[in-house]
Amino acid sequence: MTHSATPDGGVVALAGGIGAARFLRGLVQVVAPGALTVVANTGDDLRLHGLHISPDLDTITYTLGGGVHPVQGWGRADEHHTVAAELAERYGVPGWFTLGDRDLATHLLRTGMLADGATLSQATARIAAAWNLPFRLLPMTDDPVATMVETTDGRTLHFQEWWVGERAKPDVVAVGLEGAATARPAPGVLEALGQASVVLLCPSNPVVSIGTILDVPGIRPALRQKPVVGVSPIVGGRVVRGMADRLLPVLGADVSAAAVADLYSDFLDGWVMDTADRGGVPAVQSLGIVARVTDTIMRTDAVSAALARSVLDVATEVVRR
Amino acid sequence: MTHSATPDGGVVALAGGIGAARFLRGLVQVVAPGALTVVANTGDDLRLHGLHISPDLDTITYTLGGGVHPVQGWGRADEHHTVAAELAERYGVPGWFTLGDRDLATHLLRTGMLADGATLSQATARIAAAWNLPFRLLPMTDDPVATMVETTDGRTLHFQEWWVGERAKPDVVAVGLEGAATARPAPGVLEALGQASVVLLCPSNPVVSIGTILDVPGIRPALRQKPVVGVSPIVGGRVVRGMADRLLPVLGADVSAAAVADLYSDFLDGWVMDTADRGGVPAVQSLGIVARVTDTIMRTDAVSAALARSVLDVATEVVRR
Repeated sequence: MTHSATPDGGVVALAGGIGAARFLRGLVQVVAPGALTVVANTGDDLRLHGLHISPDLDTITYTLGGGVHPVQGWGRADEHHTVAAELAERYGVPGWFTLGDRDLATHLLRTGMLADGATLSQATARIAAAWNLPFRLLPMTDDPVATMVETTDGRTLHFQEWWVGERAKPDVVAVGLEGAATARPAPGVLEALGQASVVLLCPSNPVVSIGTILDVPGIRPALRQKPVVGVSPIVGGRVVRGMADRLLPVLGADVSAAAVADLYSDFLDGWVMDTADRGGVPAVQSLGIVARVTDTIMRTDAVSAALARSVLDVATEVVRR
Repeated sequence: MTHSATPDGGVVALAGGIGAARFLRGLVQVVAPGALTVVANTGDDLRLHGLHISPDLDTITYTLGGGVHPVQGWGRADEHHTVAAELAERYGVPGWFTLGDRDLATHLLRTGMLADGATLSQATARIAAAWNLPFRLLPMTDDPVATMVETTDGRTLHFQEWWVGERAKPDVVAVGLEGAATARPAPGVLEALGQASVVLLCPSNPVVSIGTILDVPGIRPALRQKPVVGVSPIVGGRVVRGMADRLLPVLGADVSAAAVADLYSDFLDGWVMDTADRGGVPAVQSLGIVARVTDTIMRTDAVSAALARSVLDVATEVVRR
């Protein structure tokens, strides 16, 4: 079923990892094949053992390609860990970042292509093709960027080192995208945004997922020219997953659905929140943003699809205004 | 049992892969711990999927560390191949070079260390320590080098692409070590050679194993200052393993134990050949080289140890001359 709100220009969705991937499983049920471009965060990308790892690109790919670990929501189903066990047991290398064997094949393919001079976009396209993704998947940038956090104990860590390696224990005083100033949107990103009938924000972390995409020069200004509808990643004043509750205060923002909308108020036209957050509707509306509440806890693909329909309904409403 | 021919200065052995590793299993039984330095060929090293792979260093390490695949003579025992299967089946990447899962851990550790600025020597030392090798293992050089073969059909291939990837089918018109002119012996190589009481040549390929080590500037001249005793890799006019029979003619050399000695005649003092090659003794002696025949087919560690004793006997004889 193709929704009426996915016309000529197509849909662009800005995406982080797990939450975005679950939303996209619904979105692909209601947007025409070929009409969707997904622009994914690469601020979490890291180099480990010389490999280029793109956690959000991979989570989206595995989830939409049908290969994701169903409980974790990241990594591969039917995964093995021989390599990581050998690294740990033989070489004493701590496995702070999970590298499953099947997952490693993706990292090796990507790293090899990059070593041979390909761009991250090109590697992403090849990987997406192998998984038969029903949309175009673009990294936000081909340039090297890294989300860095500064902790209260005075250290500057890669986001993944803080979040995965240190389980987000140290408090954070600052967070930013290293390399943002000189990063260019990946080929196709600005073109897709320019053509899009509507831009969607997946329910992803407003600081280190959507926030980093917005940090790439040119993307935020492009959104101001388009109808933009987002899904709140905050439900009932709490994060569904991830660590936005730890990072929003760093930006001086409350941990609430309305506060996240406020972060986007220079370009946001519609905001879909969980029913639990209906109390935030007036605050969102006061920003001139169309507010809608529905079930945003995506326990099943059917819930994801219903959520995607609500989002496209809001988009239609926004466009008609 | 420490042999009388392993005195103060110690022993340096130049080594390729499988044949060298089997010889070293004998040599470590008859040379005092701490007295042996092994200098290994890195001409076969290759980059694959962005990984730095050092086939000869790994074969020596796994064999002497007790982790080698007992039948193959290379790679790991109890190996799994999940990563390679995923690369082939999911991504259509042909697995022309075997990358076992356990083996990959070594490549990842090495590649990560190199990416962080370590030298190949430093990575090799860490890997050797993890395997408790009973000698010092040095790469012939830390600099990037690559053994290249030119085929009769006009292509220039990395040695591993020709040997493993194309199963050595195309005939070869030239072979050489790319990067040799500017390569420097790895730290410790010339020092070990300078101090050594005797230098041994393991029964390795005279063209692409020992030959490439000799191509590193400074190593061949250093051998001319030392008693050098080698073991023939040619038995009965045939290669025990490998492809020396395909490459010796490229150098204008016969496939015979005596012809290999001739390639080394500017520095070789003693040559141990298989009993099958006793007919070559006069030719070797005519070069002013001490010749000895014994069983060189190393079916067991006991045979390897007996061969090592013969080699050290010849070294003693050479030193006394």
